[in-house]
Amino acid sequence: MNIEDVWVCYREDLKKVEAHLQENLESHVPLIMQIGNHLLLSGGKRLRPLIVILSSKLCRYHGDTGTCLAGIVEFIHTASLLHDDVIDRAEIRRGKPVANSIWGDEASILVGDYLYSKALNLAVGLKNQRIMHTLSEATTTMSEGQVFELLKTNNPDITEEEYLIMVQKKTAALISACCRVGAIIGEAHNEEEESLASYGMNLGMAFQLADDVLDYSADEIKLGKTLGKDLDEGKITLPLIHLLKSGTSEEIEGIKEIIRDNGFKPDSLGFILRLMNKYNSMNYCLNKAKGYLTNAKEAIAHFKDTPPKQALFAVADYIIDRDK
Amino acid sequence: MNIEDVWVCYREDLKKVEAHLQENLESHVPLIMQIGNHLLLSGGKRLRPLIVILSSKLCRYHGDTGTCLAGIVEFIHTASLLHDDVIDRAEIRRGKPVANSIWGDEASILVGDYLYSKALNLAVGLKNQRIMHTLSEATTTMSEGQVFELLKTNNPDITEEEYLIMVQKKTAALISACCRVGAIIGEAHNEEEESLASYGMNLGMAFQLADDVLDYSADEIKLGKTLGKDLDEGKITLPLIHLLKSGTSEEIEGIKEIIRDNGFKPDSLGFILRLMNKYNSMNYCLNKAKGYLTNAKEAIAHFKDTPPKQALFAVADYIIDRDK
Repeated sequence: MNIEDVWVCYREDLKKVEAHLQENLESHVPLIMQIGNHLLLSGGKRLRPLIVILSSKLCRYHGDTGTCLAGIVEFIHTASLLHDDVIDRAEIRRGKPVANSIWGDEASILVGDYLYSKALNLAVGLKNQRIMHTLSEATTTMSEGQVFELLKTNNPDITEEEYLIMVQKKTAALISACCRVGAIIGEAHNEEEESLASYGMNLGMAFQLADDVLDYSADEIKLGKTLGKDLDEGKITLPLIHLLKSGTSEEIEGIKEIIRDNGFKPDSLGFILRLMNKYNSMNYCLNKAKGYLTNAKEAIAHFKDTPPKQALFAVADYIIDRDK
Repeated sequence: MNIEDVWVCYREDLKKVEAHLQENLESHVPLIMQIGNHLLLSGGKRLRPLIVILSSKLCRYHGDTGTCLAGIVEFIHTASLLHDDVIDRAEIRRGKPVANSIWGDEASILVGDYLYSKALNLAVGLKNQRIMHTLSEATTTMSEGQVFELLKTNNPDITEEEYLIMVQKKTAALISACCRVGAIIGEAHNEEEESLASYGMNLGMAFQLADDVLDYSADEIKLGKTLGKDLDEGKITLPLIHLLKSGTSEEIEGIKEIIRDNGFKPDSLGFILRLMNKYNSMNYCLNKAKGYLTNAKEAIAHFKDTPPKQALFAVADYIIDRDK
């Protein structure tokens, strides 16, 4: 099974999630629907909803709660994107102008808050203490990771270890929670639940690492994003951290100057890309990501070979192949 | 009992709340503590925690959960202040520079998100479905109200009815929730719980109305805020709505021009204050606030006459006397 097969195979489930998202975006305040729809209808991959559904099915769940849970995590994710775009002063997301460039930062902040609250409100409706615990832990960890990231902005002294902790908090924790809540509604045994949570944590790590590599290597048009955006925003990600460990002292000084200046110019990116090529920084990061994906697959290897398991494997393969 | 007696009488309870706030602000990320402390230690009145505690005691509760709940609502309130200050481009809050002017909007947005999540995470720990339902409904309603307020910014056509709905959502819903969760931990009868929730809703309405009046009449130094801030931010509050209904067509045109211009000048404020004086707009609003306070007191009139009841009455009286 490859990722295309997965989208086909679970199309009906994902359609139900879309309907759920629409239904719960209804509000007396039209702006909430407009901004919500702007992001939700702009072709996000629905990776997190898919993971919730696959995890629940892997644990033999056949009910309807997966749809609701999948919608909840997509709301949480959308809320965090709205706030991210304000913070990053982004202009483009998924090939479209970001919400805050159309409706203003104020609206993006408040509608983000609304979607967060709404997500947790929907979760409360499921009346499951462990689901609430998992989701509220994940969102707390996520925002802690984002504050940590902000603190490390423009700081070339960030270590690989710090970077990995940050990625775990800001990205992997929610993806791991997606797996765990799937296991919870599937009434999985403790061991199954922990395996799935570990799959999600490793998948999330690989996902963010691959994303950070793509920022220095992607096909700009295909991904609808600008190359070197992280550098421009002062985000010191793993490819750059690797470079700062590998270069000559002269090269490192040059890189630090670019970071300090924060005045990003096209030739700064060229300089850094050439060095990354010289020191194989991309391969270093991709190998690291592949290591996480191996761990992810191993974590759920003991499950019976069923379509949801094959699909979760396909998702893992897709994470690293997104740039093709 | 007057408000001073209340602070003295419940000092020990409020001290416990402070300790709880400090304890739960601890994070691996120091910036979260710095920003949290900046707001939490800057002399907020702790009105919402007080209301939680009084409501629980009115319902004969003697345990420790009130402290935690009081801390949770203060976290929610603090989170919303952090985001408010970014949105309003405020400079001063409680006589101190706002967090975003020191640490930047980005930090205020993210630490606000953290405090929201942390509050709900702490609430999950109480393992009480009805508390979770009450709090998550309140925060959803609150952010819906804030989006609604944003939409009505600089709009002189906002009606009194729309304004009151907005106030109910953005301010009164959380204060009502404070009362309700107090009743829930007190295991109050349904009727008692609804009475307290109604007290809180009415109190919250009066609180916001009084606040909106203070913005046109307060002693600037005493309250640590700038006069005419709402007008400056394009917030059309009840005193102005009353004026827009009462003035001559020429006066109304003048007011609308000031709102449209959004270029606030000291003599604009003078012009509007003179008109508010002419048409008794302040009294109109204060009488409306007093009406809500009468309703608030009536809602809990049937409770036995105990210190917490007297304290809740004193809180109601204080709401309207804050400018003294």
